Amino acid sequence: MNVMKPITPYYAVIFTSNLTGDDNVGYAEMAQQMQDLAKQQSGYLDFESAREEMGISISYWESLEAIAKWKANTDHLFAQQKGIKDWYSWYKVRICLVEREYDFER
Amino acid sequence: MNVMKPITPYYAVIFTSNLTGDDNVGYAEMAQQMQDLAKQQSGYLDFESAREEMGISISYWESLEAIAKWKANTDHLFAQQKGIKDWYSWYKVRICLVEREYDFER
Repeated sequence: MNVMKPITPYYAVIFTSNLTGDDNVGYAEMAQQMQDLAKQQSGYLDFESAREEMGISISYWESLEAIAKWKANTDHLFAQQKGIKDWYSWYKVRICLVEREYDFER
Repeated sequence: MNVMKPITPYYAVIFTSNLTGDDNVGYAEMAQQMQDLAKQQSGYLDFESAREEMGISISYWESLEAIAKWKANTDHLFAQQKGIKDWYSWYKVRICLVEREYDFER
């Protein structure tokens, strides 16, 4: 459940990916580690993800500076390199300004 | 596989949701219908989705005007009302400006 208050504008990094379909040994653990590590970064706001055929992971950030710092984080760089080498057949990264939001709760 | 050329800036609508966990009769069919219908709209660019616990659906659009027209589409309005009445326990909509993008392909 997302209880984040509206604080637009903020930033979203949409990361969509397909895995190679090989064993993907270590992928789930690394994904969890990176999610945990992202939460500790300055400017981090939230994280959402789901995978069926395609995986979609969205991290939310206060600023472009926070995103740039997270991208350059040493452990994250290692994970990115491992992803390119072993896990992903394709991915796409989109840097987005979240201009407006609204929600519904039963 | 996404073969869309870089044409930033454009818009993304991030729709994250949780289902009620009841039968969700008709939900999958309606979701597919709405995806098919969205593709026929003016200004539509792309669609990506995945669901595990949380569902994430992202539609991509040329402009805010295209998004507003799609939101007000009669069949889509019916689906939105049905979603609130029967399917969703929670959802959140974020309107985003995609400022930058890059991808990797093996």
